[in-house]
Amino acid sequence: MADSTQPPPIRYAVALFPGFQLLDVAGPLDILAVLAQQVPVTVYILAATLAPVTSRTARPGSVGQEIVPTHTFDNPPNDIEVLLIPGGGGTRDTAGTQALVDYAARAYPKLRYFLTVCTGAALAARAGLLNGKRATTNKLAFDWVMGLGPKVNWIRRARWVSDGNIWTSSGISAGIDMTFGFVAAQYGEEVAATVAHRQEYIRNTDPTNDPFAPESAE
Amino acid sequence: MADSTQPPPIRYAVALFPGFQLLDVAGPLDILAVLAQQVPVTVYILAATLAPVTSRTARPGSVGQEIVPTHTFDNPPNDIEVLLIPGGGGTRDTAGTQALVDYAARAYPKLRYFLTVCTGAALAARAGLLNGKRATTNKLAFDWVMGLGPKVNWIRRARWVSDGNIWTSSGISAGIDMTFGFVAAQYGEEVAATVAHRQEYIRNTDPTNDPFAPESAE
Repeated sequence: MADSTQPPPIRYAVALFPGFQLLDVAGPLDILAVLAQQVPVTVYILAATLAPVTSRTARPGSVGQEIVPTHTFDNPPNDIEVLLIPGGGGTRDTAGTQALVDYAARAYPKLRYFLTVCTGAALAARAGLLNGKRATTNKLAFDWVMGLGPKVNWIRRARWVSDGNIWTSSGISAGIDMTFGFVAAQYGEEVAATVAHRQEYIRNTDPTNDPFAPESAE
Repeated sequence: MADSTQPPPIRYAVALFPGFQLLDVAGPLDILAVLAQQVPVTVYILAATLAPVTSRTARPGSVGQEIVPTHTFDNPPNDIEVLLIPGGGGTRDTAGTQALVDYAARAYPKLRYFLTVCTGAALAARAGLLNGKRATTNKLAFDWVMGLGPKVNWIRRARWVSDGNIWTSSGISAGIDMTFGFVAAQYGEEVAATVAHRQEYIRNTDPTNDPFAPESAE
């Protein structure tokens, strides 16, 4: 659990796997890039190896791009304060994501905050990190992810959820709004508003405002 | 000028330069990745060389990530239909972006559509591609970009502008709304709506709805 008497975190890492969803990663990373004009942040990109990681999935016709990692799960920086795990079609590949799941389980006790976007919550659930917590995930994959975390208090109607030091967002673009919520909580609303203005982005600032929840969701 | 009797385009390219803005690129690319579930699109990543291109700028404290190109400006695919140029702090580096500007000028006559996001319009203006056209760009860099294109009809209040086969968007996140507008125009509103639903993204569908325009803008 984060100690609120500490200064806000400045060292972030994003963990990649083949078939990650590009915007799950780039939405939060672009916020951090613009935040870096106000706050001295460091951002690491982790993966199983240092080879570029593709957002392409095994699905026929899938298109994707490759991002270059800075560190491996076996040799990560020792000063990561915030770890973010994206979702994407690749989360369905249990073997292909096991190294990330194992790393997340090892890393979590030393983290101050842990964030997932979209079906990144599936990987966090497999790592056991969401047990006993409130969490959310992609609306179109909700039942599948729920099945991976039977001890999680899944919240179906939520743009994002924070419970203790764990933040989870709904699908893809919801990671942007969650990251703004995190930035506002850590550095203050004025800093978050400045970043959004520079990005010309209209935030959804209410984590319970979820236009994509099914009609029947509580 | 595009021939509307042709089928919609399916071969896209994004041209990178050091110091590109990550979300300018990843917003449109993620839309194409989700579109690929419905339309058989191809996406190329072009740059001056095949070395990974960083979104980090020369600004002290800048953080960024590296994307791997698929082709170079000197040896591009010969079947590109749509070319997108992002913005970012790197657009201020005239020498560092000259190869891209020269490529865009060479490539344009064979393209069906040409798109810019944010200060990507500065590079398009330098290539002479916006002369006599209506266009827009990042609101915080507007006057600088205008100075690079004195023959352009710059539109200050616009989320995005389309004029003939050239589409230009406002800053960073506006590229997402412009790309959805482009997808709707090419493949139909239902296809665009399906992509947005899968991304859990709330579109701004009105190109004249620009909350970031200065109060005095017409």
